[in-house]
Formats: sequence, C-alpha cells, structure tokens
Amino acid sequence: MRAVDIIRKKRDGLVLSQAEVQAFVSAATSGTWPDYQLSAMLMAIWLRGMTDEETGALTQAMTHSGMVLDLSEIPGPKADKHSTGGVGDSTSLVLVPLAAACGVIVPMMSGRGLGHTGGTLDKLEAIPGFRVGLSPEELKTALRKVGAAMIGQTGAIAPADRKLYALRDVISTVESLPLIAASIMSKKLAEGIGSLVLDVKFGKGAFMKKIEDSRKLAQTMVRIGNHQGVKTEALLSDMDAPLGFAVGNALEVIECLETLKGRGPAKLEALSLELAARMVRLSGIAKTQEEALAKVQAALRSGQGVEKFRQIVEQQSGNPKAVDDYTLMPLGPKRLAVTVDRAGFLSSLQAEQLGRAAMLLGAGRDKAEDAVDFSVGLRLRVGMGDEVKNEDTLAELFGHDDNKLHAAAEMVRSACAVSDVKPPGVGLIAESIH
Amino acid sequence: MRAVDIIRKKRDGLVLSQAEVQAFVSAATSGTWPDYQLSAMLMAIWLRGMTDEETGALTQAMTHSGMVLDLSEIPGPKADKHSTGGVGDSTSLVLVPLAAACGVIVPMMSGRGLGHTGGTLDKLEAIPGFRVGLSPEELKTALRKVGAAMIGQTGAIAPADRKLYALRDVISTVESLPLIAASIMSKKLAEGIGSLVLDVKFGKGAFMKKIEDSRKLAQTMVRIGNHQGVKTEALLSDMDAPLGFAVGNALEVIECLETLKGRGPAKLEALSLELAARMVRLSGIAKTQEEALAKVQAALRSGQGVEKFRQIVEQQSGNPKAVDDYTLMPLGPKRLAVTVDRAGFLSSLQAEQLGRAAMLLGAGRDKAEDAVDFSVGLRLRVGMGDEVKNEDTLAELFGHDDNKLHAAAEMVRSACAVSDVKPPGVGLIAESIH
Repeated sequence: MRAVDIIRKKRDGLVLSQAEVQAFVSAATSGTWPDYQLSAMLMAIWLRGMTDEETGALTQAMTHSGMVLDLSEIPGPKADKHSTGGVGDSTSLVLVPLAAACGVIVPMMSGRGLGHTGGTLDKLEAIPGFRVGLSPEELKTALRKVGAAMIGQTGAIAPADRKLYALRDVISTVESLPLIAASIMSKKLAEGIGSLVLDVKFGKGAFMKKIEDSRKLAQTMVRIGNHQGVKTEALLSDMDAPLGFAVGNALEVIECLETLKGRGPAKLEALSLELAARMVRLSGIAKTQEEALAKVQAALRSGQGVEKFRQIVEQQSGNPKAVDDYTLMPLGPKRLAVTVDRAGFLSSLQAEQLGRAAMLLGAGRDKAEDAVDFSVGLRLRVGMGDEVKNEDTLAELFGHDDNKLHAAAEMVRSACAVSDVKPPGVGLIAESIH
Repeated sequence: MRAVDIIRKKRDGLVLSQAEVQAFVSAATSGTWPDYQLSAMLMAIWLRGMTDEETGALTQAMTHSGMVLDLSEIPGPKADKHSTGGVGDSTSLVLVPLAAACGVIVPMMSGRGLGHTGGTLDKLEAIPGFRVGLSPEELKTALRKVGAAMIGQTGAIAPADRKLYALRDVISTVESLPLIAASIMSKKLAEGIGSLVLDVKFGKGAFMKKIEDSRKLAQTMVRIGNHQGVKTEALLSDMDAPLGFAVGNALEVIECLETLKGRGPAKLEALSLELAARMVRLSGIAKTQEEALAKVQAALRSGQGVEKFRQIVEQQSGNPKAVDDYTLMPLGPKRLAVTVDRAGFLSSLQAEQLGRAAMLLGAGRDKAEDAVDFSVGLRLRVGMGDEVKNEDTLAELFGHDDNKLHAAAEMVRSACAVSDVKPPGVGLIAESIH
C-alpha cells in the first residue's frame, strides 16, 4: 500500500479499510512515511472526518503501536477515568483514592498540562518527592500493594499517538473529533483496564466550547471503548467556571486533600464522587449507581480515601506528611488579594481567563518543554452566584514577582463579573452517555 | 504571521489575504516552514480551494519567488504557448518555428514528461546534440538571432513552484485547480512575455478527464494572465485519442518535421496552426484570426517554418542535418508490428494506454529521476474512424527488448477497438476561452 494512494483515498472522502489505517499508523510509528506525508494525511482526516469504524481502527492501531499492559496477574477489577481537561479540575486526585478504597484497581496514566488547563502529573509533582515515572514493574507492585497508582505515560505506550500529536500541534489539526478520540482512547486502552469513565468537558473553559461537540466526542469514545471490550461510560460536565476554587499545582493538591477530608468545594466533591461511583459500579463492586455512590461516600466520610491517598504518595516516594501538613507544600511567598469593585452577585467566572492568569504566574506551560512552578496560582474566595460586598476579596494570588502578580490580578479581575441579580444556577453534569 | 494560523485559516475555508499567501510562498522558497507545514497547507488548499484572488496572489508570489526575465531589450512582441500535456502532442515543435517565422519572439520554457504524457524537452533532446539548458544570456542571444528558443526551466525560475510541486507529487495534491493554475502561470509569467496561448486538454488521455474541469482551469488561468498584464487566451482541445500518430521522443520529432514539411497528421497540423495563429494575432502581427491563420499557413507552405526549426536546432547546438536526414535520429533497432484481429472501423484509440505502452518501452518516466530512451515508442498506422481489414497493421513498435515489445504490443492492442460502424467524428477544438 503506497502512502500517496492512502492519502488520496482519504482526501477524496472515501472510507479507509482497517489495513489502510493500520498502514498509516505503522508508518507513523516506524518513520516509514516522512512527516510531510503524515501531515497531509492528518489534514485530510481533519477535513474529511472518519467513520466510527475508521476511528475504531485508528484507535486500535495506535494502542498496539506500543506496549499494552497486561494486568491480569493482579487480582481485582481494573478501571480508570479520563477527563478532557479543564481549569481547576483535580477530580483525579480525589476519585482515584476513593475508588481504590472501594476495591477498584486504578492504573491511572496521565499527561502534563498544556495551555490554560492543568495536568495531573504536574499537580502530583507539587508533592515533595512524588515520582510519576514508574516502570511497568513498579506500577504493578504499586497496584498490588496500594490498589492505585498515578503515573506518566511512558514512551512505550502508544508511540504513534505521541508522534502524530506532535505533528498535529504544529499543523493546526488538533481539534478533530476522530483524532482526539483515537488519541485519548488509544492510551487508555493500553492500560489493561476493564472499565473506563470519561469526563468530557464543555463550556468556555474547556477544550470544546459547545456541548454538541462534547457529546459527539463522548459518543464516539464510548462506542470505541465498548467495541474493544472495555466497559465505557461518559459524563458531559460544565466547565464555564472552574470546578474548584484553586488554580495552580500545589494549591489544587491542597484543595483535593481538603476535599478528601470532607471540606472541599461542593462541585469538586460532587463530580469526583459521581465519577468514582461509576468506576465502582462498572467494576461490578456495586449493582446500582446509588449503591456505588453510597460506598464512595462512605470511603470519603470514614477517611479511607485520604488514607489511600497517603499510601499512594508514600508508594510513589512522596512525603506522606504533606497530606496533613500543608506547610510542606511549596507555595509562592508573595501574595496579592484581588477585590471586587462593587456589591452584587458573582455572575461570571471565566475559567479560561483564570487558567491563563495562573499560567502567567508560572503555573502552566505555553510549550511542552516549558518548566512549571508548582508554588504559584490563585485561590478564589467566592464562587459563582455568591453575594459580594464592595471590596470583598475575590481571589488570593500566590507568586514570586510583583509585576506578574499585578498583571495576573488584572486578568482575574477581568475574568469575573458582578451583577445586580443572582445568576441562575448551572447544572454541573449535563448528560450521561452509555 | 505564524504558519499554524495561516494553515488553520485555510483549513477552516476562509479566504487568505495576499500577505498570507505571500508568507506561505516565501516560506516555501526559503525553507522557513518545514515540509510538514507546507504539506498540511497544500492539503488544506486541495480540499478547500482558493478564490480567483487567492489563486492570483499565489501565482504572483510564485512568479516572484525567483528570476523574472526582462526581454524588453529584445525588439518584437514576445509570446508563448502552454499545453497541459497529452499523448503524442508535439504541437510546440511545430508552432514555435511557425510563429517565429511570422515575427513572434518565442522564449519557450518547458518541462519534462512525467507519467504517460510526453515532455517537450525530452523530444528536443532526441535531436543529436540539442541543448535545452541555455543560460538567460544564451536565451537572449538565441532570441535576437533566431527569434525563438526552446529551453528548460532553469532553477532560477519560480523556485517556490519546484519546491511545492515536489511535495504535491508525494502527498496526492497534484490535481487541484488553484495549485495547477498557479504552477503553470507562475512559470509562464516569469518568461517576460506579452501574450500567452493555453492549450487545455480534456478527455481520456489528458490530465483532466472532464471538459468542465478543463474549462474551469482555462478560465482561471486566462483571468490570472490578463490580470497580470499578459494577453491570455485558451483553447479546450480533445485528448481522447493521440493528436498525431507517433508516441515516443525521436518518433514525435520526425512527425513534427514531417508536419512542418506539409506531410503531417491532419489534427496535429490543424491544432498547431490554430495555436500559432493565436500567438500571431495576440502579438498584434495580424488583426483577425483569419489573417493570422493565413500568415501561419503561408509560413508552413513556403518552408519558412521548417527553416526556422533548422535555425533553432543549430542555435541550440543540435545537428541541423537531422531535420532532413532522419537516419541521424535515434530509433530502436527492434521493430514489432501490431495487427488488428478483425475488419471494421477503428472506434477507440485510448491515448493514455498508448502513452503507457510507450513508457513501458522506455520512452517516459515513472519518477522524475528516471532516464528516458529517446529511440523507443510507437507509430500508429491508422487513425480514429479509419476502415481496417483483418490483419492490417495497427501500429509499429520501436524498442530494444523483445519481452518489452511484446508486452507493449498487448497494451496497444487493448488500447484500440474495431467496430462495425464508423464512429462519429470528434471535433478537435471544443471551445475558445478569452
């Protein structure tokens, strides 16, 4: 099969066979097709789309472009969660210990943050000593001992995805439903799991702004997962405003710990519990969602969740004392309070703007090779719909540099609006897709 | 202007500004954009198309990516012809000396053959000693002395086109109207001409099979040419069956010489005269097409045309004796006659198949770096609609290798069909586009 013929077929809007998709992915992995041919193919896919069958074949080929974990020797049901990424979304750090406390084996592999959205690995690395680079053997040991591990995608997992993603980033072909679906699912299907819960965000702070796009992506991924034998469900959740109050790596870890101690923001707790409960139910540990939710809530209330988090930290070489003593977490020495300039109700909290303010302080990456400062970020003091008085503190900023703090303060101010009437409440979870 | 933003804009079907098109072409010329970005852009253009304004901007930027000839110091009107390429189409070799004999200065730059269609440079090089690689100064000397030169595109002309064409070839983005139009016109507009006649082929043996596609391409190129100050006209001509009887480099040169001596195939003569007359009229040497045609016919009948050809050959270091003594032309030593297997009328002569048979004998290139054998090819003995008896010779093949001759004979046989009824005649020139 010649590259030009496969490219031409997709260019002309025809459906590629499984063998043709496989040839493309193999060539991306081995380097047999030069970058310019991969690039033309990606643009043709972006513009012509792919059928569910093609997207499934793409996912499968990408999954098998590298190592696929075999966790069958570890007893217990394996499940994971994937979120399409948002601002101040640290549900992973809450739900992994809760699901594990209920008996789910969670071999979670995550990526790093890029642009205005944070990444689980960066958050975990804010915990002093925490190692995300476990080998497959170390991962298995951790799963056997603790029941959960949160690690980085090793180079051995889905190398075709890494190659194609790097190209997509520089040729404007990132926002493509089949390419996004295959990229996410190929990595998750390589984890050796039996169930998967997807948290697909929509709204101003999310990668996909429109709920219709999120729905289509969720449906495609759910079909792919189930077709490949992994029980898969998705939630569509709102990401107009940030999920929690903290934006920034160490700040978000602290917020997650507070949530595991029962003192977290309501939306972060609710979404984490819902997702964890779905993992528990899909894993067969509970028959109904209600029963699963009760189990997860019990794990939270009893402190088993936070205890599991401590075990994960310890197993991955982090300092377990940081779970209780937040002074062990790095926090920017300079603080700046941002206040509101009128009384009323907080009617807008633009997540993307807040994410960019945290990035400006050093919390995120513009390019993949940028370094991240774990200690900086911001913590909101009020939530959407809350009543405020003039000069009330809106947020507290953590940083090192006065100029950056003042610039970030401006961004935070412009990300928020106060109005005379209380805005209508927005449901957090819009839909569930099976 | 960032590459990703320009690519995204075209990907989304928006119209690029002149500055954006210019940035793309400059980057292709200088290598500032890596191949994978050029490649993504080309695929986006293929799929989204370009407006006339964008195509014009693309042409202009490509023209000015390299040297633009200034022939103002040479007296007389400068004109050229471009054909989109066909099988057994050697009108250039007939019309250039005829137009020059009528006083048109013809600085013709051509390409080499690729695939089943022949190239003017390959045909010329079949003449012993003929040099197509003249420097700009040598070209000017030739134009001053002889009034015409037929040379290869130097690397200095439209380097952006060469870069982009090489990529298009390997990423299946050749057949794009704006890309074809800009590629053709950018090179012609760099020749320093005042008028241009385009021969746009359609039909089974042409690059574009459908007349609608040829019409659109012709209209686009005519608009671009006139917009950039070059008087431009186009003909749509039929390329179902080959234009002449010869397919192969030396064989086509001999056929052209016969045509210049008044003994050529009717269709080849008619199309060459029509095109040459248009060059003469657009150059202002004749007021009407009838007057121009009369001048060109006179040049043919009087022998001025063949004399001009001899001068061109001599000026470009070729052996002028070959014009009269065809034994000086290379011709494959082994011959094989292909006969018809039934009586009737020749009802089909698939030009593309015949071109491929000649290619198989070594007359053409599969890849740009392949060598060409000038001495091989085929000569038809009957034309479309001719009556044949069983075992009449259909064609004579010229080659070196028995196996290849027999394989080519099979292809020639399958390219021709004999039927009981005489097929309706097909007009050679379908339309004229101003």
